[in-house]
Amino acid sequence: MEDYSLLKNIKSPSDVKKLSDEELGELCNEIRKKLIATVSNNGGHLASNLGAVELTVAIHKVFDSPKDQIVWDVGHQCYVHKLLTGRFDKFDTIRTDNGISGFCRPGESEHDITFTGHSSTSISTAFGLAKANSILGKKDRYSVAVIGDGALTGGLAYEGLNNAGKSKEKLIIILNDNNMSISKNVGAMSKHLSKLRSKPSYYKFKEGTENFLNKIPLIGHWLSRRVSSLKAKIRHLIYPETIFEEMGFVYLGPIDGHDLPTIVEALQSAKNRKKPVVLHVNTIKGKGYSFAEDNPDAFHGISKFDIETGTTAPSKLNYSAVFGSELCTLAEKDRRICAVTAAMTDGTGLCKFSEKFKDRFFDVGIAEEHAITFSCGLAKNGMIPVVALYSTFLQRSYDELIHDAALQNLKIIIALDRAGFVGEDGETHHGLFDISFLNSIPNIDIYSPSSYDELRRALNDAVYGDSKLTVIRYPRGGEIQLPDYAKVTGRDFDVYGGDNNEIALITFGRLFAYAAKAAENLKTKGIRVRLIKLNKIKPFNQKALECAIECKNIFFFEESVKSGSIGESFGSRVSECGKDNKFFLYAV
Amino acid sequence: MEDYSLLKNIKSPSDVKKLSDEELGELCNEIRKKLIATVSNNGGHLASNLGAVELTVAIHKVFDSPKDQIVWDVGHQCYVHKLLTGRFDKFDTIRTDNGISGFCRPGESEHDITFTGHSSTSISTAFGLAKANSILGKKDRYSVAVIGDGALTGGLAYEGLNNAGKSKEKLIIILNDNNMSISKNVGAMSKHLSKLRSKPSYYKFKEGTENFLNKIPLIGHWLSRRVSSLKAKIRHLIYPETIFEEMGFVYLGPIDGHDLPTIVEALQSAKNRKKPVVLHVNTIKGKGYSFAEDNPDAFHGISKFDIETGTTAPSKLNYSAVFGSELCTLAEKDRRICAVTAAMTDGTGLCKFSEKFKDRFFDVGIAEEHAITFSCGLAKNGMIPVVALYSTFLQRSYDELIHDAALQNLKIIIALDRAGFVGEDGETHHGLFDISFLNSIPNIDIYSPSSYDELRRALNDAVYGDSKLTVIRYPRGGEIQLPDYAKVTGRDFDVYGGDNNEIALITFGRLFAYAAKAAENLKTKGIRVRLIKLNKIKPFNQKALECAIECKNIFFFEESVKSGSIGESFGSRVSECGKDNKFFLYAV
Repeated sequence: MEDYSLLKNIKSPSDVKKLSDEELGELCNEIRKKLIATVSNNGGHLASNLGAVELTVAIHKVFDSPKDQIVWDVGHQCYVHKLLTGRFDKFDTIRTDNGISGFCRPGESEHDITFTGHSSTSISTAFGLAKANSILGKKDRYSVAVIGDGALTGGLAYEGLNNAGKSKEKLIIILNDNNMSISKNVGAMSKHLSKLRSKPSYYKFKEGTENFLNKIPLIGHWLSRRVSSLKAKIRHLIYPETIFEEMGFVYLGPIDGHDLPTIVEALQSAKNRKKPVVLHVNTIKGKGYSFAEDNPDAFHGISKFDIETGTTAPSKLNYSAVFGSELCTLAEKDRRICAVTAAMTDGTGLCKFSEKFKDRFFDVGIAEEHAITFSCGLAKNGMIPVVALYSTFLQRSYDELIHDAALQNLKIIIALDRAGFVGEDGETHHGLFDISFLNSIPNIDIYSPSSYDELRRALNDAVYGDSKLTVIRYPRGGEIQLPDYAKVTGRDFDVYGGDNNEIALITFGRLFAYAAKAAENLKTKGIRVRLIKLNKIKPFNQKALECAIECKNIFFFEESVKSGSIGESFGSRVSECGKDNKFFLYAV
Repeated sequence: MEDYSLLKNIKSPSDVKKLSDEELGELCNEIRKKLIATVSNNGGHLASNLGAVELTVAIHKVFDSPKDQIVWDVGHQCYVHKLLTGRFDKFDTIRTDNGISGFCRPGESEHDITFTGHSSTSISTAFGLAKANSILGKKDRYSVAVIGDGALTGGLAYEGLNNAGKSKEKLIIILNDNNMSISKNVGAMSKHLSKLRSKPSYYKFKEGTENFLNKIPLIGHWLSRRVSSLKAKIRHLIYPETIFEEMGFVYLGPIDGHDLPTIVEALQSAKNRKKPVVLHVNTIKGKGYSFAEDNPDAFHGISKFDIETGTTAPSKLNYSAVFGSELCTLAEKDRRICAVTAAMTDGTGLCKFSEKFKDRFFDVGIAEEHAITFSCGLAKNGMIPVVALYSTFLQRSYDELIHDAALQNLKIIIALDRAGFVGEDGETHHGLFDISFLNSIPNIDIYSPSSYDELRRALNDAVYGDSKLTVIRYPRGGEIQLPDYAKVTGRDFDVYGGDNNEIALITFGRLFAYAAKAAENLKTKGIRVRLIKLNKIKPFNQKALECAIECKNIFFFEESVKSGSIGESFGSRVSECGKDNKFFLYAV
């Protein structure tokens, strides 16, 4: 057993400040061991945290949290922060029931400024924090956003940069650039960062150069006429200006994100600037654990694994894999079919598709809004885009779904993964809103399959059905065995036990398996029920309603927030029928 | 009367191509006259269209629409396009019932590629169009996005740039830079563009310079060691690289957007590049009509006006003005109150606030997502941010409302203007979704005032009430006179005619005035009803439900899409009561 002799005594960031340089190095080793030991047991985000060990230690050495506020974008890199802010003792409970969260959670600690989980929010948040400090005269406080190169592809991050760049606040944006993000990073910003990464001496050299340049004379007549500020311009000769400088920030870096003294020095330098700063830190995802360094994608979010071999239990078949495989089958036969995702290639089961159909596969970065509007362009010109996203992240695209997709009557198919409760990732990741916000959109079809076969059937129906926005939503993980009688029929809804008219149970998706078990249990107690399984939950199905209201008591079960749910739509129609049915809605 | 001798004969873009340079100049004059004449009568977006006359004529001269596809961002600049694509005859009907739309509308013309109205979608759409053409082998087709400097502040535009910049598609992005956008443009991108604007000879000079630089030798030993591609670097000496070039685009410009031959030449040059192009065009908002040039904000979206004097009828009091005025009163007394908007300072009634409380006023650009998340930062550190937006544009912030505001339990107040039908702006602008998507969010209060007094009361209650996300939604325009009995009570709901129990009418917001009239009409026919007015529509009010279900027939009226509406929540609860009430829901 490791004894964590330094780490176990870190009760708050002030304890970090007491350690010598040598001890800080040892602390980093202990942190890595603790991360690997814990995640190997609980699962979680490993590679990004291993990459942020020195960075996080340096941040807590230089800044004074919680007076200075550290905002961790997404939160895939917040485990080290948790270990240094009084949560070492509870760290073994991470991502378990009643345990600490795998993301930032304000209720856990005053050092967690906001809940996190969704991408690209940190710059806007930190700028707001800084502005408030400034207005309220709290001038000695720093606001720090720590954001990865992946999160920087999100439009919200750009909106934040655009707004903050012109200010004078004490705002420091630390770009944790591991050149990876969740899936392999793509896009123009990523190219720009790569260019900067290849200039590892920029930060130090620049300060040296400026002194040097102060001494040299003008270097030519033709230049002198056109160049107003020669020294600044000559810097460009050596290193092009960065996007961040163009936007008004002081740019420092790139620096080695695993060299603790360098990071400490750079952060101290950043504190002394009169403008917002972007500090560019190069890190290695998975640093210090060879399996994770070699395969950072697999160790991004990983389940329980063996430390010695770096292996996990073979993954079982799940909805994502079934979707990915069926889409490949369809794409093989139809060149119009393409796949779009937003940095979730692996998670949505699209790895095989991305290899087989390179020219029809689009990972657009963490940019769910663009994923939809881009797909509208594809569809308009004859392609059939299938956009695979997690339910919780599709929330970002609500406006584009209405304005660019549904209103335009374009055939876009959304494969909506992680619909419903997702388990360990917690409050910011549950797919509990998609039913309500999608239900509000006119001109949309929504399927909610209860089995792999139904998912396959829905995908085929969507591809070769009407030209409209169609969503197929399915849960995280695998199917639950359905009773034999519940085979795929291709109907919009199925009824079992239609001769009963006292009690109707209605549901759809994953919950149907439980409703079927409940019906069986009730049967053993002599209570027979009419079981209604909705397969296509939107448009509203009037016939399913008519079938239900033949029964006196109608029980509707749904894995969704209640307001705006299919159950509420159903219940409202029950009351419009004006009979004496009693309706029971069980939702979140 | 003008005879529009050239314009009336333009039936399609091919007719533009037949005109001589001199005739094209005359055509531009006729277009301006027609724009001014029509908008002075119908109201609409004038200044942005006047600024885009030459640009649009040049586009239709150089490109071959609809084979080449022109995507107009937002659509505030699409009137000229309409005049050149067969809609001159119907132009007088613009923005009227059954007339042509003030935005792009595919049903009107094959030259309108998508519906528009919301900002920053054009790059993503055009890139999708281009990708599809490329995959399907339609290699001779261009995709063109025309986007203003304002729309470029939206994160979606950046996501599109980021994704498109690395491609090789025939994609041309025309940046129509009038240095204004809707409200005065703000932010870092705007600064960057200003810097570029001040280099009016860049486009031509650059091509000249490159030839020149081909001939010069290396200019110094110390440089030669460090500089790999000297010629490219020397260009930086003269003009810094633009953000667009950093992102992978060819950058051309800036050019004079009112010099037709120059624009034509630049567009032709853009067609010959092997990479996506950004063409930067400087235009003057309101060009050619002095009142609009002098006051482009006022002539952005304007109601009927007098051509000779440039004056409109004095504007009547409206909800926006009442909100703005009340917020000033509150801010005077409480330094924590600040106002945030997304390029809607004037439209939301915040002009006075922006002048009086400069340090507490934030126009963040067309960036609704950032507006919310930034406000969360403000609120976290003790400010009380009041975010004023139009209902239709808040759709962009759905995820941030859930993830950054409601979950964090922060006191953020949203003043939601243009809730409900908005009239002339049409299908992309109606505020018909806010109730459904807000209703789905837990931990939120929603007020829907029926009068100015109720708006004032709601704002005060929100500012000094619970620490939570609160929305106050009100319609475009002015209040409708309420009956004397319907004074502000400060209760969450009010009941009139409680002794009646056959019929209940329930509604809220603007519709209450109509319900009250209906109740009066019914009274004259001997039918008395119980009238229930909801003031706070969320959280769900159980007591209002109990009051309603005492009546046999319950009529619920709502200016919202039906799915997810308050009425559906209400109806579902009626059926959960299990009595024999009959429920009638009238929604959109």
